[in-house]
Amino acid sequence: MNNDILIINSTILPLSHKEAELIEKGFISITDGAISALGPMTDLPDSSKASKTIDARGHLAMPGLVNTHAHAPMSLFRGLADDLPLMTWLNEHIFPAEAKSVNREMVYWCSKLAAAEMILAGTTTVADGYFLEDSVAEAFTDCGIRSVVAQGVIDFPAPGVPDPAQNVASASQFIDSWQGRNELIIPAVFCHSPYTCSPETLKKAKEMARQKNAKLFVHLAETKFEVEQMREQHGTTPVRYLDSIGILDNDTVCIHCVWLDEEEIEILAKSGAKVSTCPQSNMKLGSGIAPLQEMLSAGISIGLGTDGCASNNTLDLFSEMDLCAKLHKVRDLDPTALPAEIVLEMATLGGARVLGLEKDIGSLEPGKKADVVLLDVNQPHLQPFYHPDLLVYAASGADVSTVIIDGKIVMQDRQILTQDINETMKKVRKLADCF
Amino acid sequence: MNNDILIINSTILPLSHKEAELIEKGFISITDGAISALGPMTDLPDSSKASKTIDARGHLAMPGLVNTHAHAPMSLFRGLADDLPLMTWLNEHIFPAEAKSVNREMVYWCSKLAAAEMILAGTTTVADGYFLEDSVAEAFTDCGIRSVVAQGVIDFPAPGVPDPAQNVASASQFIDSWQGRNELIIPAVFCHSPYTCSPETLKKAKEMARQKNAKLFVHLAETKFEVEQMREQHGTTPVRYLDSIGILDNDTVCIHCVWLDEEEIEILAKSGAKVSTCPQSNMKLGSGIAPLQEMLSAGISIGLGTDGCASNNTLDLFSEMDLCAKLHKVRDLDPTALPAEIVLEMATLGGARVLGLEKDIGSLEPGKKADVVLLDVNQPHLQPFYHPDLLVYAASGADVSTVIIDGKIVMQDRQILTQDINETMKKVRKLADCF
Repeated sequence: MNNDILIINSTILPLSHKEAELIEKGFISITDGAISALGPMTDLPDSSKASKTIDARGHLAMPGLVNTHAHAPMSLFRGLADDLPLMTWLNEHIFPAEAKSVNREMVYWCSKLAAAEMILAGTTTVADGYFLEDSVAEAFTDCGIRSVVAQGVIDFPAPGVPDPAQNVASASQFIDSWQGRNELIIPAVFCHSPYTCSPETLKKAKEMARQKNAKLFVHLAETKFEVEQMREQHGTTPVRYLDSIGILDNDTVCIHCVWLDEEEIEILAKSGAKVSTCPQSNMKLGSGIAPLQEMLSAGISIGLGTDGCASNNTLDLFSEMDLCAKLHKVRDLDPTALPAEIVLEMATLGGARVLGLEKDIGSLEPGKKADVVLLDVNQPHLQPFYHPDLLVYAASGADVSTVIIDGKIVMQDRQILTQDINETMKKVRKLADCF
Repeated sequence: MNNDILIINSTILPLSHKEAELIEKGFISITDGAISALGPMTDLPDSSKASKTIDARGHLAMPGLVNTHAHAPMSLFRGLADDLPLMTWLNEHIFPAEAKSVNREMVYWCSKLAAAEMILAGTTTVADGYFLEDSVAEAFTDCGIRSVVAQGVIDFPAPGVPDPAQNVASASQFIDSWQGRNELIIPAVFCHSPYTCSPETLKKAKEMARQKNAKLFVHLAETKFEVEQMREQHGTTPVRYLDSIGILDNDTVCIHCVWLDEEEIEILAKSGAKVSTCPQSNMKLGSGIAPLQEMLSAGISIGLGTDGCASNNTLDLFSEMDLCAKLHKVRDLDPTALPAEIVLEMATLGGARVLGLEKDIGSLEPGKKADVVLLDVNQPHLQPFYHPDLLVYAASGADVSTVIIDGKIVMQDRQILTQDINETMKKVRKLADCF
């Protein structure tokens, strides 16, 4: 057997089932970008060879994490304006900062920074939404991170789309340009929200996305204020509104979904729409707590998202998992609420399902893409290691030592191999000088 | 000028004022365990020499963090039983695990593991409470971490104190044995709670502590159930009860304080008692959200605590800060609630105040003990670095590269210098085999 990469002597958490079962000492064979075999070391054929062998003693291998919502270029605004009222933050800081700084160069370099940050924290797939998304796709291609990149649509002049009348056409061109172009990039459309896109824009974008078999992302029911605004403008609530104009289906990903009533959860579930939850962003901006348990009970697929760096302020899904599990326990005053295993699934196979990629990624199984992360668990804060729950309640992104995406090693021993990270940080710091 | 250690070219966050002001490029001189001078590099005398010079380019120096509540030996139970109802967790898992495993050897080695974990995450002072606290104090002395070590008092047979009638006497001996013994260790008493200690025990312990000028720690008002139990048994609420029997004063540290009414906050404030808040533990166990803003408004000194590893599951105060700030924003649906600066103070000077050590530690100022941590901020998730808020919202314990306690380097470039950490992890894993 001739493999490209052979990982040996690793603890393995395949996460192919809901139960988080460990292989104590195992191997993973990677060939042509995919997992060709995995199992206990005792099952490794003597004849196994590989171009590269990684002895992963003291490490745990798990599927790469899936971030279902980010705005990569916003890494430039990380911590630029914290602890402010939402409208002050948005209107006096984030919007002016965007007006001042967003261009192709900024989008490219800040997306590279974000990609490095995500890879260093064990994220192998990200769903991104922004403007000039072409440059995000180029940056992600260069960094070797798998992504669903969604071109922003909004009914205002936007970077790269000065005429809002062209917003859907622009997203359509973006999708045409990237569909099938490379293995890692899946193009999509990102309608900013029902309060910044008219019903006509939303319908046109959804129709276009349907024709191209592409996902549509939309911020939805993030704040109480949004619900009130929607009631005033359309006489109904956000989910009912999107449902009434035919936006919700299997290929729609609704981001946030904090303020939903019971019936709206039913509507979402029936529609097949997926949900991306961003608990840290919802906490930091004081938006609220999404009804995750209720949505899961209704059978809705939920993935975890970090949101952009302006409102979190990191892209670390490990801390997102920890905080998500704890937040929902304290919401219900119930330590059994949202157990670690459920959250671990939301960050892996659940996230893959949200992006329609569950056949390819989200778990370690023969035939799936080789998106694998190795964590150094031989550290004081991860010992003793009784149970994979510890990945939720004790691990952090910094524990990830090696990352393989699509069968390629993109980070090894905490060194990013796909870009000169010092050059990227320098470029971004220079861009930050204008603030 | 001849210094023991001279840190140069560092960004410095002294935190000696509420406003988090940075020195862009500065130096810190350390002599005889204390900070002898600090300021911008331009103020560094040409004649400055030191036995050791640390060039801290790309790093940020800040005061070591203060953990106001931990149970170090419980690192053995990290992740042993997660996501369970409180009473199942306690009665079917934690208590039996303690009965099976707690002895001097376990306490010593698991405290060493905890000390390593804390040092690696930038904590330089910890207030610990457990049984066989002698062995905790020995472990902490060996590891070079500053601590307030409090011997447990409970009205049941406990490790090292088989006869509960001897619990206060035992704590008294412990304090006598450690008071003035070494620079790093300050002994105290830890009465487990008002529901596990009789009023007589509490009064006797407080009287003893007063005579010895020692702190008394007590778990208080952690769960709704505790408040109900207290009402049934004593016809009043936890804070009122402790106040009525004379336990609350300047030298009492009340841990948790989740379930308080307005009048109890006033009682606490008037008494001068301090509060240790452990948000991650309170979330994970589904206990509730402490009224921090209300306590701060009333003038109560509050410090952050991690609680033990059985209920968190790490000892990382950086993640504790992040989660604390975000939790209180979502509680109030107000992004301006509990700003980063307040939380940063709770983890440094505020924590020092809770432990009565504000004259010695908690900020970087000439004359104070040299408890200094250096963070590597030249990393993707900490760039750009506009503001120290990022230490709360983006940094993690893993970003700490060097730790100095009492003028001694105890960790450098992520290597623990005061113990053989592989030996410690091996010993703890062996102890864990019994589960």
